[in-house]
Amino acid sequence: MNLLESLNWRYATKKFSNRKVSAVDIDKIIEATNLSASSTGLQPYRLFLIENDELRKKLGEGSFNAQIAESSHLLVFAAFEKVTAEHIDNYINHIAAERNIPVDSLADFKNALVHGILGRTDEVNFNWAARQAYIALGTAMVAAADLQIDTTPMEGFDADKFDELLNLKGKGLKSVVTLAIGYRHEDDIFANFKKVRLPKAEFATVIE
Amino acid sequence: MNLLESLNWRYATKKFSNRKVSAVDIDKIIEATNLSASSTGLQPYRLFLIENDELRKKLGEGSFNAQIAESSHLLVFAAFEKVTAEHIDNYINHIAAERNIPVDSLADFKNALVHGILGRTDEVNFNWAARQAYIALGTAMVAAADLQIDTTPMEGFDADKFDELLNLKGKGLKSVVTLAIGYRHEDDIFANFKKVRLPKAEFATVIE
Repeated sequence: MNLLESLNWRYATKKFSNRKVSAVDIDKIIEATNLSASSTGLQPYRLFLIENDELRKKLGEGSFNAQIAESSHLLVFAAFEKVTAEHIDNYINHIAAERNIPVDSLADFKNALVHGILGRTDEVNFNWAARQAYIALGTAMVAAADLQIDTTPMEGFDADKFDELLNLKGKGLKSVVTLAIGYRHEDDIFANFKKVRLPKAEFATVIE
Repeated sequence: MNLLESLNWRYATKKFSNRKVSAVDIDKIIEATNLSASSTGLQPYRLFLIENDELRKKLGEGSFNAQIAESSHLLVFAAFEKVTAEHIDNYINHIAAERNIPVDSLADFKNALVHGILGRTDEVNFNWAARQAYIALGTAMVAAADLQIDTTPMEGFDADKFDELLNLKGKGLKSVVTLAIGYRHEDDIFANFKKVRLPKAEFATVIE
């Protein structure tokens, strides 16, 4: 399948089969997601991949999204509540190490980050971090569809409970969106519904 | 190239050549972007695709991002400032028409949308709409890379000026992020820099 066919094939799966996604394929989805672009390259969010049945069951209790418990794997996207000088330092040091260049040669870039990011409120930075996580969510869904693996993006979950059960607060993180991963159940009637999208001309205005 | 190769091939292009992206390829990128998932399927954002040289020049004036003017096409993602009952009505009517089902059969779904979305503040809904646009941004970058077309996502632009020049306010929209599209210039030194991403284990925590 080419990319457009894969995107037409995918849908927000309501009912998953009990078939597990292989470790190799999960790894490919994570790798693709890690390759997502983020503003300034800072990647101000983290992923939590939950295969553990019991934990997924607990996370899903009380949610209208049965997919949290019933999928093969659950991916939780968590954004940093605060972006700190340490995040920027670590990032700059990491670039220098990866590219084998002196940290000093990145001084201008670092100053731009410090000035641009640390001058904003924590709330602005959290929303910014969450948006970067949503770019990654987009990549993860495409990467899964490319492998003919089903997904369901979900905002309908108890973020406080997720943060507690995954100990996100201790890491300065807050869950923002989740993605159930698995294979569609043959009984999922939603698989056959016609995909509804805006007419192209209404979605995108072209200025030639 | 497979998807991972395409994602490794892509980078935030700093300098574009003057080669134009074909109308056929631009159309594929728009179509893929329109196939992006959005919460409840509402697609609370719109795209503006600007090919016009003069307009791109005006939009790019005073920005440190030369790519606004120098790319082949510029894609602007704009989110609705308010999500209204009319948006929901139009969406429900559109589903009914596309799936050839009575509008009444969607009453429960419509109520859930009205209750869930219209009960929130405009600010919450705008941030929510912007996040959906970022999912689409993620799709657009992957779709372009899949066609070996370069892109640069940019948050560094004068949103007020963009909104004015594109008459977004009159449409209830606000620009949130842009994507320059084109082909990398052979002199763009950034193309050869090693891509820096978090080590996989730091990016994603696996709970087996």
